Amino acid sequence: MSTHADRLEALRTQLKDDALDGFVVPLTDEHMSEYVGSYAQRLAWLTGFDGSAGAAAVLPEEAAIFTDGRYTIQVRNQVDGELFSYEDVPQTSIAQWLSKKAPSGGRIGFDPWLHTRAWVKAATKALADKGAELVAVERNPIDKVWIDQPAPSKAKLEPYSQNLAGKSSAAKRADIAAWLKEEEADAAVIAALDSIAWALNVRGKDVTHTPVALAFLVVQADGTADLFLDGDKVDGELRNHLGEEVRIHERSDFEAHLEGSYSGKAVAVDPERSVAAIEMALERGGAKVIARRDPAVLPKAIKNEAEIAGHRAAQERDGVVISRFLKWLEEEAPKGGQDELSVAAKLYALREETGELKDISFDTISGAGANGALPHYRVDEKSNAKLENNQIYLVDSGGQYLDGTTDITRTVIVGTPTDEMIDRYTRVLKGHIAIARARFPEGISGGRLDSFARQYLWEIGEDFAHGTGHGVGAFLAVHEGPQRISPPGGAYAGADEPLREGMILSNEPGFYKEGEYGMRIENLVLVVAHEVEGRRVLGFETLTFAPLDRRLIDKEMLTPEERRWVDDYHAQVMEKIGSQLTGEDKEWLEAQCKPL
Amino acid sequence: MSTHADRLEALRTQLKDDALDGFVVPLTDEHMSEYVGSYAQRLAWLTGFDGSAGAAAVLPEEAAIFTDGRYTIQVRNQVDGELFSYEDVPQTSIAQWLSKKAPSGGRIGFDPWLHTRAWVKAATKALADKGAELVAVERNPIDKVWIDQPAPSKAKLEPYSQNLAGKSSAAKRADIAAWLKEEEADAAVIAALDSIAWALNVRGKDVTHTPVALAFLVVQADGTADLFLDGDKVDGELRNHLGEEVRIHERSDFEAHLEGSYSGKAVAVDPERSVAAIEMALERGGAKVIARRDPAVLPKAIKNEAEIAGHRAAQERDGVVISRFLKWLEEEAPKGGQDELSVAAKLYALREETGELKDISFDTISGAGANGALPHYRVDEKSNAKLENNQIYLVDSGGQYLDGTTDITRTVIVGTPTDEMIDRYTRVLKGHIAIARARFPEGISGGRLDSFARQYLWEIGEDFAHGTGHGVGAFLAVHEGPQRISPPGGAYAGADEPLREGMILSNEPGFYKEGEYGMRIENLVLVVAHEVEGRRVLGFETLTFAPLDRRLIDKEMLTPEERRWVDDYHAQVMEKIGSQLTGEDKEWLEAQCKPL
Repeated sequence: MSTHADRLEALRTQLKDDALDGFVVPLTDEHMSEYVGSYAQRLAWLTGFDGSAGAAAVLPEEAAIFTDGRYTIQVRNQVDGELFSYEDVPQTSIAQWLSKKAPSGGRIGFDPWLHTRAWVKAATKALADKGAELVAVERNPIDKVWIDQPAPSKAKLEPYSQNLAGKSSAAKRADIAAWLKEEEADAAVIAALDSIAWALNVRGKDVTHTPVALAFLVVQADGTADLFLDGDKVDGELRNHLGEEVRIHERSDFEAHLEGSYSGKAVAVDPERSVAAIEMALERGGAKVIARRDPAVLPKAIKNEAEIAGHRAAQERDGVVISRFLKWLEEEAPKGGQDELSVAAKLYALREETGELKDISFDTISGAGANGALPHYRVDEKSNAKLENNQIYLVDSGGQYLDGTTDITRTVIVGTPTDEMIDRYTRVLKGHIAIARARFPEGISGGRLDSFARQYLWEIGEDFAHGTGHGVGAFLAVHEGPQRISPPGGAYAGADEPLREGMILSNEPGFYKEGEYGMRIENLVLVVAHEVEGRRVLGFETLTFAPLDRRLIDKEMLTPEERRWVDDYHAQVMEKIGSQLTGEDKEWLEAQCKPL
Repeated sequence: MSTHADRLEALRTQLKDDALDGFVVPLTDEHMSEYVGSYAQRLAWLTGFDGSAGAAAVLPEEAAIFTDGRYTIQVRNQVDGELFSYEDVPQTSIAQWLSKKAPSGGRIGFDPWLHTRAWVKAATKALADKGAELVAVERNPIDKVWIDQPAPSKAKLEPYSQNLAGKSSAAKRADIAAWLKEEEADAAVIAALDSIAWALNVRGKDVTHTPVALAFLVVQADGTADLFLDGDKVDGELRNHLGEEVRIHERSDFEAHLEGSYSGKAVAVDPERSVAAIEMALERGGAKVIARRDPAVLPKAIKNEAEIAGHRAAQERDGVVISRFLKWLEEEAPKGGQDELSVAAKLYALREETGELKDISFDTISGAGANGALPHYRVDEKSNAKLENNQIYLVDSGGQYLDGTTDITRTVIVGTPTDEMIDRYTRVLKGHIAIARARFPEGISGGRLDSFARQYLWEIGEDFAHGTGHGVGAFLAVHEGPQRISPPGGAYAGADEPLREGMILSNEPGFYKEGEYGMRIENLVLVVAHEVEGRRVLGFETLTFAPLDRRLIDKEMLTPEERRWVDDYHAQVMEKIGSQLTGEDKEWLEAQCKPL
């Protein structure tokens, strides 16, 4: 079974045994996580595709792989077109393809632990229109034929200090219990891993770059909770931390618990952050499922004073690293011999030197020249490019520290920039400043601010094809909901979420010239409240401190206010970061941070 | 039947005769028009409420009137609370109220010519959940008991010159036919009155302030069309204009035509711009209804060269009127003795003096002091306020001219403004300029620009509670879709419609201080294309020319670019309007238009 052809054949044989005419293979896990563990990489195992979003559908004679515009080239490089036809989403959905291709009366299998209820309903309807049936499988047929499937991680779940969390788990659960009362519900199922980590003040090591553990949680109306996880993850310290109010169960008992414990009760389930199997199990057991947003999502996004203090410390620590890194890069890159991997390794080493790094917060995007223009670029041995002279280099990276999660992008010129590079960088900077300086009343969503970041690129008919900002966790996920700064509608859930004091977001406009270079300026910002003539006005306070490449700034293109913003920002960088540097590092930073 | 109690009783008796347990009374017509004729004012007849949006529901023992936040006070003044309970939408919908109050097994009537299919589906479901049934009536029971119900207008339908329309009806219908082919449809039902007027190059006089006629149109795949209207509206000139390709039928034959002509055919119907009865009749006759946007909506919104030229002429003509009016106001208002009605009458008289005015394009909003702060204020004898000294006066008005529809708002100070008034007016102006100067790529919607208009009010925690801009017709409706500049989502359909070269919109940010004053600056703008470094960039060209009140502008608050915009704008006003003025009118305008 070393080839994808073998694997596809094995799956088809298994489907026959399971009396199925087809099967759907998404790239998700039981928690609708953004990043999934290796045990859940069924799509990659079956097809060879290792992008971050996609799905496959397998029928007796045909199979297809579904990816979006980001992966048009990659999917053709990685997946055998003889085995799978290439289908583009959103133009073609899996349900559409299946409803065209599935045999009338056919039974198409799906794993209810890997799809939302909304997907199941839509796909069921699409297939029913063509006389085919969507069937929930008991056990995923891929798991039956994937001989060397990795086991889910058994890493220990660890307590997270209340000093850093700023609030006890008991108090958080009491808030959820009060909310359940308001909603006239008896319990809330929480399946999102970062919500569980937040609610219980625990952190895990099961997901790459995100300190969470595989588990399910049910919070009861009395504030107690039932936690389901692999027993190997639990030790005495954790039991002690969780206390008697959190009952610990084996993860494998979760489904039976849902079926057996809520007859006649109302149970809140988040339809976007939970899989269909959860709702199905509750309903089989006679519970009334009520669709509500995971009650941890909003309080987790609104950071408390301890979390904000932790974030400030983490961002400063990380800023010192970035400053040292940028000085090193400015000296080393022009000498030649550096490439995207070597530079990313240097940055990693500097973060490690802090002695505080738990992990990086996502795979470092290290893009020289044209590679920087690729959305979602991830450097590997094959793509690894040299840092050439007179080229733009973009580095987007972050660290996981106990006191906070960081995410920062800096763009620099190696050598001498062209006028166009300076023009584009300055427009990106003006957009970044427009967000940083924005003021707005309570109730305004990030979607209403997004255009401020794009307006100076729009002037010349340009734009950037990603959101302007995402929420960031407190030693949790680097991409965290519910708020976003991004265009409304489409793929960007959260653009309509009102911003609230205490939320942390990224501010990261960019510009990408295909085949030439990519630019992005990213700082994290905190939503803060001001008082103006007795009225409450929200705005942002920048948390990230590291110098901008002044060689790329055309100060004539800045308004006096924008220039003042840059000078003030650099003065703060000097004050906060400079005090933690010595010698040449400090001298270099001083030169970067003098007024424009 | 002179009292509303009598009318309600008569309706209830009629419902009994019709074997109904209730009835829904919306404020719409058979065309989902924004403004409806007097024959369709069933809500006002039944309840006394004459606002622009609302509905009632009547049950044997209870009745309710449903209005939104704009009409909270008005509905209580106009409607007897003993007869109707006051219900707020969107908090309570008619369907919700009925599903709570209707007797189980009850039959609730609705007129399928006054509701969209979507409403019918939602209400049917809500009632079914409570065991009640929603029943389409054959004839509206109000029409059976409303003795002196006005007849629909019989005004003649008139040809509209091709010189002004810029394109023949045959060519427009050929475009629709080509679209039908693409959509694999056999015909399109067009129920929106302005779409019919546009497609046939005709204008009518059946709707207040909008030159359209009551009719239905079906465009066939061969480019011919079937027009349904009252025979009295048709004369030889119209027959000649429409030619043989447009078959004329009695309006009363429309339903039978839908039932009898499309068996097995695919017919495009706009679900937002058509009533349920149309789809129901087609389906009874064996047609396949396909939901598509009215094919006239987009081409009507994208003005051709002739329509743009007409608009330019109309806006200039109207600007001359406004300029003369503002001079008169500046001289007369401080003397005392003027009120909202007398001032609006003067403005009307000046528009009439042009000799070109066909109608005003909407009821003039003439708001002095606190009245200006009321959203949707319409002056009447009771509300009519004097123009006091040191008070803000707002006037939002427009004319219907053969060559174009105008819509302009100016805000002036009578006497001396406070510092706060100057601050707020200048912020509104900065927002207006931000829209006027915006540049953006193809594909960007008005919803993405809306925040530009609000940002300077947001800075101080203020905002305005209406959209920034709406489409405007060419001697058609003053509110025209599909595009808008307004916050995304909610009540503002069209915020996600991409702006296209040739569209005309209003640019009208405002500020409202409850109990004190209202301000708004409104010009019409045309979407134009520029070329920047070989890329196509869209922006706006202002079409409306009339001076701004310089006494309300704090030039220190303007950036150099904004100040230049005001000076350039005033220079254009002087050039275009000044050349059509003489004597004191011209001298006054010169003083208004000198650089700040």
